[in-house]
Amino acid sequence: MTNNNNSVLPSNDLYTLMRERHSVRHFDTEFVISEEEINEMIELAVKAPSSSNSQSWRFLVVTDKELKKQLKIVADNQQQVEDASAVFVILSDMKFYDKLDEIFTSAVEAGYMPKEFKDEYVPNVTKYYQALPKEQFHESVSFDAGLVAMQLMLIAKSKGYDTVPMGGYNKEKLKMLLNVPDNLLPLIILPIGKGIQPGRRSTRLPVEDVLTWNQFK
Amino acid sequence: MTNNNNSVLPSNDLYTLMRERHSVRHFDTEFVISEEEINEMIELAVKAPSSSNSQSWRFLVVTDKELKKQLKIVADNQQQVEDASAVFVILSDMKFYDKLDEIFTSAVEAGYMPKEFKDEYVPNVTKYYQALPKEQFHESVSFDAGLVAMQLMLIAKSKGYDTVPMGGYNKEKLKMLLNVPDNLLPLIILPIGKGIQPGRRSTRLPVEDVLTWNQFK
Repeated sequence: MTNNNNSVLPSNDLYTLMRERHSVRHFDTEFVISEEEINEMIELAVKAPSSSNSQSWRFLVVTDKELKKQLKIVADNQQQVEDASAVFVILSDMKFYDKLDEIFTSAVEAGYMPKEFKDEYVPNVTKYYQALPKEQFHESVSFDAGLVAMQLMLIAKSKGYDTVPMGGYNKEKLKMLLNVPDNLLPLIILPIGKGIQPGRRSTRLPVEDVLTWNQFK
Repeated sequence: MTNNNNSVLPSNDLYTLMRERHSVRHFDTEFVISEEEINEMIELAVKAPSSSNSQSWRFLVVTDKELKKQLKIVADNQQQVEDASAVFVILSDMKFYDKLDEIFTSAVEAGYMPKEFKDEYVPNVTKYYQALPKEQFHESVSFDAGLVAMQLMLIAKSKGYDTVPMGGYNKEKLKMLLNVPDNLLPLIILPIGKGIQPGRRSTRLPVEDVLTWNQFK
Protein backbone atom coordinates (compact mmCIF):
# COMPACT_ATOMS: atom_id res chain seq x y z
CA MET A 1 0.00 0.00 0.00
CA THR A 2 1.90 3.03 -1.23
CA ASN A 3 -0.84 5.62 -1.10
CA ASN A 4 -2.67 6.41 2.11
CA ASN A 5 -3.98 9.69 0.82
CA ASN A 6 -7.74 9.84 0.59
CA SER A 7 -7.66 12.87 -1.72
CA VAL A 8 -7.66 10.56 -4.76
CA LEU A 9 -11.22 9.54 -3.86
CA PRO A 10 -14.00 9.31 -4.92
CA SER A 11 -12.64 7.28 -7.80
CA ASN A 12 -13.77 4.39 -9.96
CA ASP A 13 -10.28 2.94 -10.23
CA LEU A 14 -10.36 -0.65 -8.98
CA TYR A 15 -6.83 -0.62 -7.55
CA THR A 16 -7.31 2.67 -5.71
CA LEU A 17 -10.61 1.45 -4.28
CA MET A 18 -9.18 -1.84 -3.05
CA ARG A 19 -6.20 -0.12 -1.46
CA GLU A 20 -8.18 2.72 0.12
CA ARG A 21 -11.19 0.82 1.42
CA HIS A 22 -10.90 0.48 5.17
CA SER A 23 -13.53 -0.23 7.78
CA VAL A 24 -14.80 3.08 9.11
CA ARG A 25 -16.59 3.40 12.44
CA HIS A 26 -17.38 7.13 12.64
CA PHE A 27 -20.12 8.50 10.42
CA ASP A 28 -21.75 11.85 9.73
CA THR A 29 -25.05 11.40 11.57
CA GLU A 30 -26.82 13.99 9.38
CA PHE A 31 -25.86 12.53 6.03
CA VAL A 32 -28.60 10.68 4.14
CA ILE A 33 -28.03 8.29 1.24
CA SER A 34 -31.15 8.26 -0.91
CA GLU A 35 -33.22 5.12 -1.40
CA GLU A 36 -32.67 5.53 -5.11
CA GLU A 37 -28.91 5.39 -4.69
CA ILE A 38 -29.14 2.34 -2.41
CA ASN A 39 -31.28 0.63 -5.05
CA GLU A 40 -28.67 1.39 -7.69
CA MET A 41 -25.86 0.08 -5.51
CA ILE A 42 -27.64 -3.21 -4.94
CA GLU A 43 -28.58 -3.52 -8.59
CA LEU A 44 -24.89 -3.39 -9.53
CA ALA A 45 -23.64 -5.50 -6.60
CA VAL A 46 -25.87 -8.43 -7.54
CA LYS A 47 -23.96 -8.79 -10.81
CA ALA A 48 -21.71 -10.96 -8.62
CA PRO A 49 -21.70 -14.63 -9.57
CA SER A 50 -23.33 -17.24 -7.34
CA SER A 51 -23.54 -20.98 -7.13
CA SER A 52 -25.79 -22.11 -10.03
CA ASN A 53 -26.77 -18.41 -10.33
CA SER A 54 -28.96 -19.06 -7.29
CA GLN A 55 -28.63 -15.47 -5.94
CA SER A 56 -29.40 -16.62 -2.41
CA TRP A 57 -28.42 -13.20 -1.00
CA ARG A 58 -31.09 -10.95 0.50
CA PHE A 59 -30.76 -7.41 1.83
CA LEU A 60 -32.59 -5.74 4.64
CA VAL A 61 -31.74 -2.05 4.66
CA VAL A 62 -32.44 -0.23 7.90
CA THR A 63 -32.73 3.55 7.55
CA ASP A 64 -35.35 4.32 10.21
CA LYS A 65 -33.71 6.28 13.05
CA GLU A 66 -35.50 4.53 15.88
CA LEU A 67 -34.83 1.08 14.42
CA LYS A 68 -31.12 1.89 13.97
CA LYS A 69 -30.99 2.86 17.65
CA GLN A 70 -32.51 -0.47 18.65
CA LEU A 71 -30.26 -2.35 16.23
CA LYS A 72 -27.26 -0.69 17.88
CA ILE A 73 -28.29 -2.25 21.20
CA VAL A 74 -28.47 -5.68 19.54
CA ALA A 75 -24.97 -5.04 18.14
CA ASP A 76 -23.17 -4.62 21.42
CA ASN A 77 -23.92 -0.88 21.52
CA GLN A 78 -21.52 -0.11 18.72
CA GLN A 79 -22.27 3.50 17.87
CA GLN A 80 -21.63 3.21 14.12
CA VAL A 81 -24.87 1.23 13.78
CA GLU A 82 -26.90 4.21 14.94
CA ASP A 83 -24.77 6.86 13.21
CA ALA A 84 -24.57 5.37 9.71
CA SER A 85 -26.98 6.56 7.01
CA ALA A 86 -28.18 3.01 6.55
CA VAL A 87 -27.41 -0.43 7.89
CA PHE A 88 -27.50 -3.32 5.46
CA VAL A 89 -28.31 -6.67 6.98
CA ILE A 90 -26.97 -9.28 4.57
CA LEU A 91 -28.89 -12.53 4.74
CA SER A 92 -28.96 -15.85 2.96
CA ASP A 93 -32.25 -17.31 1.85
CA MET A 94 -32.11 -20.97 2.87
CA LYS A 95 -35.05 -21.58 0.53
CA PHE A 96 -33.49 -19.78 -2.41
CA TYR A 97 -34.47 -22.68 -4.66
CA ASP A 98 -38.06 -21.41 -4.55
CA LYS A 99 -36.88 -18.61 -6.86
CA LEU A 100 -34.87 -20.74 -9.30
CA ASP A 101 -37.74 -21.07 -11.70
CA GLU A 102 -38.19 -17.29 -11.79
CA ILE A 103 -34.45 -16.81 -12.40
CA PHE A 104 -34.15 -19.29 -15.23
CA THR A 105 -37.45 -18.37 -16.83
CA SER A 106 -36.06 -14.87 -17.22
CA ALA A 107 -32.89 -16.35 -18.76
CA VAL A 108 -35.06 -18.23 -21.27
CA GLU A 109 -37.01 -15.05 -22.03
CA ALA A 110 -33.74 -13.14 -22.56
CA GLY A 111 -32.67 -15.80 -25.07
CA TYR A 112 -29.74 -16.98 -22.94
CA MET A 113 -31.01 -20.51 -22.43
CA PRO A 114 -33.35 -22.91 -24.28
CA LYS A 115 -36.56 -23.63 -22.40
CA GLU A 116 -35.86 -27.38 -22.56
CA PHE A 117 -32.59 -26.84 -20.72
CA LYS A 118 -34.30 -24.78 -18.00
CA ASP A 119 -37.02 -27.39 -17.55
CA GLU A 120 -34.40 -29.99 -16.65
CA TYR A 121 -31.96 -27.69 -14.91
CA VAL A 122 -34.24 -26.16 -12.26
CA PRO A 123 -35.43 -29.43 -10.68
CA ASN A 124 -31.89 -30.85 -10.85
CA VAL A 125 -30.35 -27.87 -9.07
CA THR A 126 -33.16 -27.89 -6.51
CA LYS A 127 -32.56 -31.56 -5.76
CA TYR A 128 -28.81 -31.00 -5.54
CA TYR A 129 -29.12 -28.30 -2.90
CA GLN A 130 -31.81 -30.04 -0.92
CA ALA A 131 -29.56 -33.11 -0.69
CA LEU A 132 -26.43 -31.16 0.27
CA PRO A 133 -25.14 -31.74 3.82
CA LYS A 134 -26.22 -28.83 6.02
CA GLU A 135 -22.67 -27.63 6.62
CA GLN A 136 -21.87 -27.46 2.92
CA PHE A 137 -25.14 -25.71 2.22
CA HIS A 138 -24.25 -23.03 4.77
CA GLU A 139 -20.76 -22.70 3.33
CA SER A 140 -22.12 -22.21 -0.16
CA VAL A 141 -24.70 -19.53 0.66
CA SER A 142 -22.28 -17.72 2.99
CA PHE A 143 -19.57 -17.69 0.34
CA ASP A 144 -21.99 -16.22 -2.20
CA ALA A 145 -23.09 -13.59 0.31
CA GLY A 146 -19.41 -12.67 0.69
CA LEU A 147 -19.13 -12.15 -3.06
CA VAL A 148 -22.02 -9.71 -3.20
CA ALA A 149 -20.97 -7.95 0.02
CA MET A 150 -17.51 -7.26 -1.39
CA GLN A 151 -19.02 -5.71 -4.51
CA LEU A 152 -21.28 -3.57 -2.31
CA MET A 153 -18.35 -2.28 -0.22
CA LEU A 154 -16.36 -1.38 -3.34
CA ILE A 155 -19.34 0.38 -4.91
CA ALA A 156 -19.91 2.33 -1.68
CA LYS A 157 -16.25 3.38 -1.62
CA SER A 158 -16.40 4.50 -5.26
CA LYS A 159 -19.24 6.83 -4.30
CA GLY A 160 -17.27 8.34 -1.45
CA TYR A 161 -19.07 6.36 1.25
CA ASP A 162 -17.59 4.11 3.89
CA THR A 163 -18.67 0.79 5.36
CA VAL A 164 -17.78 -1.56 8.18
CA PRO A 165 -18.72 -5.25 7.98
CA MET A 166 -19.75 -6.52 11.42
CA GLY A 167 -20.31 -10.07 12.61
CA GLY A 168 -20.51 -9.17 16.29
CA TYR A 169 -24.19 -8.91 17.09
CA ASN A 170 -26.88 -11.06 18.67
CA LYS A 171 -28.49 -13.03 15.83
CA GLU A 172 -31.60 -14.06 17.73
CA LYS A 173 -32.31 -10.55 18.97
CA LEU A 174 -31.76 -9.11 15.50
CA LYS A 175 -34.21 -11.61 14.04
CA MET A 176 -36.82 -10.63 16.60
CA LEU A 177 -36.28 -6.90 16.20
CA LEU A 178 -36.54 -6.97 12.40
CA ASN A 179 -39.10 -9.80 12.06
CA VAL A 180 -36.68 -11.90 10.03
CA PRO A 181 -38.49 -14.97 8.68
CA ASP A 182 -37.07 -18.39 9.55
CA ASN A 183 -35.81 -19.12 6.04
CA LEU A 184 -33.46 -16.12 6.16
CA LEU A 185 -30.08 -16.49 7.83
CA PRO A 186 -28.47 -13.19 8.91
CA LEU A 187 -24.75 -13.12 8.16
CA ILE A 188 -23.25 -9.69 8.65
CA ILE A 189 -24.56 -6.20 9.23
CA LEU A 190 -22.95 -3.47 7.19
CA PRO A 191 -23.34 0.15 8.27
CA ILE A 192 -22.79 2.56 5.38
CA GLY A 193 -22.46 6.33 5.43
CA LYS A 194 -20.25 9.34 5.07
CA GLY A 195 -17.13 8.61 7.13
CA ILE A 196 -15.81 11.47 9.27
CA GLN A 197 -12.70 9.75 10.63
CA PRO A 198 -10.31 7.52 8.71
CA GLY A 199 -10.56 3.80 9.29
CA ARG A 200 -8.25 1.98 11.67
CA ARG A 201 -5.25 0.69 9.72
CA SER A 202 -4.57 -3.03 9.58
CA THR A 203 -1.88 -5.28 8.19
CA ARG A 204 -2.00 -8.39 6.06
CA LEU A 205 -0.13 -11.68 6.23
CA PRO A 206 2.66 -11.87 3.65
CA VAL A 207 1.53 -13.61 0.47
CA GLU A 208 3.86 -16.57 1.07
CA ASP A 209 1.90 -17.30 4.28
CA VAL A 210 -1.36 -17.79 2.38
CA LEU A 211 -0.28 -19.02 -1.07
CA THR A 212 0.92 -22.52 -1.95
CA TRP A 213 1.85 -23.64 -5.45
CA ASN A 214 0.38 -26.83 -6.95
CA GLN A 215 0.30 -29.17 -3.96
CA PHE A 216 0.77 -29.24 -0.22
CA LYS A 217 3.85 -31.17 0.93
CA MET B 1 -26.40 -4.00 -18.46
CA THR B 2 -26.24 -1.64 -21.38
CA ASN B 3 -22.85 -2.55 -22.75
CA ASN B 4 -22.06 -6.08 -23.86
CA ASN B 5 -19.04 -5.00 -25.84
CA ASN B 6 -15.77 -6.36 -24.53
CA SER B 7 -13.77 -3.79 -26.47
CA VAL B 8 -13.82 -1.42 -23.47
CA LEU B 9 -11.63 -3.94 -21.62
CA PRO B 10 -9.06 -4.25 -20.12
CA SER B 11 -10.13 -1.41 -17.86
CA ASN B 12 -9.74 -0.46 -14.22
CA ASP B 13 -13.18 1.12 -14.05
CA LEU B 14 -15.13 -0.56 -11.27
CA TYR B 15 -18.52 -0.25 -12.96
CA THR B 16 -17.29 -1.61 -16.28
CA LEU B 17 -15.59 -4.52 -14.54
CA MET B 18 -18.65 -5.46 -12.52
CA ARG B 19 -20.90 -5.28 -15.58
CA GLU B 20 -18.55 -7.12 -17.91
CA ARG B 21 -17.33 -9.90 -15.61
CA HIS B 22 -18.98 -13.15 -16.64
CA SER B 23 -18.01 -16.72 -15.94
CA VAL B 24 -15.95 -17.95 -18.88
CA ARG B 25 -15.45 -21.65 -19.61
CA HIS B 26 -13.21 -21.58 -22.69
CA PHE B 27 -9.57 -20.64 -22.27
CA ASP B 28 -6.51 -20.25 -24.45
CA THR B 29 -4.59 -23.40 -23.53
CA GLU B 30 -1.23 -21.87 -24.52
CA PHE B 31 -1.54 -18.70 -22.47
CA VAL B 32 0.56 -18.53 -19.30
CA ILE B 33 0.01 -16.07 -16.46
CA SER B 34 3.32 -15.55 -14.68
CA GLU B 35 3.82 -16.52 -11.04
CA GLU B 36 4.80 -12.94 -10.39
CA GLU B 37 1.48 -11.65 -11.68
CA ILE B 38 -0.44 -14.22 -9.63
CA ASN B 39 1.45 -13.11 -6.54
CA GLU B 40 0.53 -9.49 -7.26
CA MET B 41 -3.13 -10.40 -7.77
CA ILE B 42 -3.30 -12.18 -4.43
CA GLU B 43 -1.43 -9.41 -2.65
CA LEU B 44 -4.10 -6.93 -3.73
CA ALA B 45 -7.07 -9.28 -3.25
CA VAL B 46 -6.20 -9.89 0.41
CA LYS B 47 -6.82 -6.20 1.14
CA ALA B 48 -10.40 -7.48 1.58
CA PRO B 49 -11.72 -7.19 5.12
CA SER B 50 -12.26 -10.28 7.26
CA SER B 51 -13.82 -11.12 10.58
CA SER B 52 -11.46 -9.69 13.27
CA ASN B 53 -8.91 -9.33 10.44
CA SER B 54 -8.40 -13.08 10.76
CA GLN B 55 -7.57 -13.57 7.06
CA SER B 56 -8.62 -17.22 7.20
CA TRP B 57 -8.41 -17.50 3.40
CA ARG B 58 -5.71 -19.68 1.84
CA PHE B 59 -4.86 -20.17 -1.84
CA LEU B 60 -3.55 -23.20 -3.60
CA VAL B 61 -2.63 -22.30 -7.16
CA VAL B 62 -2.36 -25.19 -9.57
CA THR B 63 -0.32 -24.42 -12.68
CA ASP B 64 1.29 -27.81 -13.34
CA LYS B 65 -0.17 -29.29 -16.54
CA GLU B 66 -0.41 -32.87 -15.28
CA LEU B 67 -2.01 -31.80 -12.00
CA LYS B 68 -4.56 -29.64 -13.82
CA LYS B 69 -5.47 -32.69 -15.91
CA GLN B 70 -6.04 -34.75 -12.78
CA LEU B 71 -7.91 -31.91 -11.12
CA LYS B 72 -10.24 -31.79 -14.12
CA ILE B 73 -11.21 -35.40 -13.46
CA VAL B 74 -12.01 -34.53 -9.83
CA ALA B 75 -14.14 -31.65 -11.15
CA ASP B 76 -16.57 -33.69 -13.18
CA ASN B 77 -14.33 -33.55 -16.27
CA GLN B 78 -15.04 -29.90 -16.86
CA GLN B 79 -12.54 -28.92 -19.52
CA GLN B 80 -11.91 -25.38 -18.28
CA VAL B 81 -9.97 -26.81 -15.32
CA GLU B 82 -7.37 -28.28 -17.62
CA ASP B 83 -7.38 -25.41 -20.14
CA ALA B 84 -7.02 -22.45 -17.77
CA SER B 85 -3.56 -20.95 -17.15
CA ALA B 86 -3.99 -21.61 -13.44
CA VAL B 87 -6.61 -22.99 -11.10
CA PHE B 88 -6.99 -21.31 -7.73
CA VAL B 89 -8.32 -23.52 -4.98
CA ILE B 90 -9.76 -21.20 -2.36
CA LEU B 91 -9.66 -22.70 1.10
CA SER B 92 -10.47 -21.64 4.64
CA ASP B 93 -8.00 -22.35 7.41
CA MET B 94 -10.08 -23.72 10.28
CA LYS B 95 -7.14 -23.06 12.57
CA PHE B 96 -6.64 -19.49 11.39
CA TYR B 97 -6.33 -18.36 15.02
CA ASP B 98 -2.82 -19.86 15.07
CA LYS B 99 -1.79 -16.88 12.94
CA LEU B 100 -3.57 -14.16 14.91
CA ASP B 101 -0.51 -13.36 16.96
CA GLU B 102 1.57 -12.91 13.80
CA ILE B 103 -1.12 -10.66 12.30
CA PHE B 104 -1.52 -8.39 15.30
CA THR B 105 2.19 -8.28 16.13
CA SER B 106 2.72 -6.81 12.68
CA ALA B 107 -0.04 -4.26 13.40
CA VAL B 108 1.77 -3.29 16.62
CA GLU B 109 5.05 -2.99 14.72
CA ALA B 110 3.38 -0.79 12.10
CA GLY B 111 2.16 1.51 14.86
CA TYR B 112 -1.52 0.73 14.22
CA MET B 113 -2.22 -0.81 17.63
CA PRO B 114 -0.70 -0.57 21.13
CA LYS B 115 1.03 -3.76 22.28
CA GLU B 116 -1.16 -3.87 25.42
CA PHE B 117 -4.27 -3.98 23.22
CA LYS B 118 -2.86 -6.81 21.11
CA ASP B 119 -1.92 -8.83 24.21
CA GLU B 120 -5.55 -8.85 25.31
CA TYR B 121 -7.14 -8.98 21.89
CA VAL B 122 -5.49 -12.09 20.45
CA PRO B 123 -6.48 -14.50 23.25
CA ASN B 124 -9.98 -13.00 23.37
CA VAL B 125 -10.54 -13.43 19.64
CA THR B 126 -9.09 -16.96 19.78
CA LYS B 127 -11.47 -17.91 22.58
CA TYR B 128 -14.40 -16.35 20.73
CA TYR B 129 -13.84 -18.42 17.59
CA GLN B 130 -13.08 -21.62 19.43
CA ALA B 131 -16.38 -21.27 21.29
CA LEU B 132 -18.43 -20.44 18.18
CA PRO B 133 -20.96 -23.11 17.12
CA LYS B 134 -19.51 -25.08 14.23
CA GLU B 135 -22.14 -23.88 11.77
CA GLN B 136 -21.48 -20.22 12.52
CA PHE B 137 -17.75 -20.79 12.30
CA HIS B 138 -18.17 -22.26 8.83
CA GLU B 139 -20.44 -19.39 7.81
CA SER B 140 -17.89 -16.82 8.95
CA VAL B 141 -14.85 -18.29 7.20
CA SER B 142 -16.85 -19.02 4.03
CA PHE B 143 -18.19 -15.48 3.94
CA ASP B 144 -14.66 -14.07 4.27
CA ALA B 145 -13.44 -16.38 1.51
CA GLY B 146 -16.21 -14.96 -0.67
CA LEU B 147 -14.95 -11.42 -0.03
CA VAL B 148 -11.42 -12.20 -1.16
CA ALA B 149 -12.60 -14.33 -4.10
CA MET B 150 -14.69 -11.45 -5.44
CA GLN B 151 -11.71 -9.12 -5.30
CA LEU B 152 -9.64 -11.74 -7.13
CA MET B 153 -12.21 -12.10 -9.92
CA LEU B 154 -12.40 -8.33 -10.40
CA ILE B 155 -8.61 -7.99 -10.44
CA ALA B 156 -8.37 -10.79 -13.00
CA LYS B 157 -10.95 -9.07 -15.19
CA SER B 158 -9.10 -5.74 -14.97
CA LYS B 159 -6.04 -7.50 -16.37
CA GLY B 160 -7.99 -8.92 -19.28
CA TYR B 161 -8.29 -12.40 -17.79
CA ASP B 162 -11.40 -14.42 -17.15
CA THR B 163 -12.48 -16.70 -14.34
CA VAL B 164 -15.21 -19.17 -13.46
CA PRO B 165 -16.00 -19.95 -9.83
CA MET B 166 -16.86 -23.65 -9.44
CA GLY B 167 -18.37 -25.48 -6.51
CA GLY B 168 -19.07 -28.70 -8.42
CA TYR B 169 -16.14 -30.98 -7.65
CA ASN B 170 -15.42 -33.88 -5.33
CA LYS B 171 -13.99 -32.37 -2.14
CA GLU B 172 -12.50 -35.58 -0.77
CA LYS B 173 -10.79 -36.46 -4.04
CA LEU B 174 -9.42 -32.94 -4.39
CA LYS B 175 -8.00 -33.10 -0.87
CA MET B 176 -6.27 -36.38 -1.68
CA LEU B 177 -4.93 -35.23 -5.03
CA LEU B 178 -3.45 -32.00 -3.67
CA ASN B 179 -2.47 -33.27 -0.18
CA VAL B 180 -4.72 -30.72 1.49
CA PRO B 181 -4.12 -30.79 5.26
CA ASP B 182 -7.10 -31.43 7.54
CA ASN B 183 -7.27 -27.89 8.87
CA LEU B 184 -7.94 -26.51 5.38
CA LEU B 185 -11.48 -26.55 4.02
CA PRO B 186 -11.72 -26.29 0.21
CA LEU B 187 -14.53 -23.97 -0.87
CA ILE B 188 -14.41 -23.22 -4.58
CA ILE B 189 -12.00 -23.78 -7.39
CA LEU B 190 -11.44 -20.85 -9.71
CA PRO B 191 -9.87 -21.43 -13.12
CA ILE B 192 -8.26 -18.27 -14.51
CA GLY B 193 -6.88 -17.58 -17.96
CA LYS B 194 -7.28 -15.84 -21.27
CA GLY B 195 -10.87 -16.40 -22.33
CA ILE B 196 -11.45 -17.27 -25.98
CA GLN B 197 -15.23 -17.35 -25.96
CA PRO B 198 -17.56 -14.93 -24.17
CA GLY B 199 -19.21 -16.12 -21.00
CA ARG B 200 -22.73 -17.49 -20.93
CA ARG B 201 -25.14 -14.65 -20.21
CA SER B 202 -27.28 -14.78 -17.11
CA THR B 203 -30.04 -12.71 -15.56
CA ARG B 204 -30.60 -11.33 -12.09
CA LEU B 205 -33.67 -11.17 -9.89
CA PRO B 206 -35.20 -7.68 -9.84
CA VAL B 207 -33.93 -5.62 -6.89
CA GLU B 208 -37.37 -5.57 -5.26
CA ASP B 209 -37.17 -9.37 -4.96
CA VAL B 210 -34.04 -9.23 -2.81
CA LEU B 211 -34.30 -5.89 -0.98
CA THR B 212 -36.55 -5.11 1.98
CA TRP B 213 -36.66 -1.75 3.78
CA ASN B 214 -36.31 -1.59 7.57
CA GLN B 215 -38.30 -4.62 8.71
CA PHE B 216 -39.98 -7.71 7.41
CA LYS B 217 -43.77 -7.65 7.72
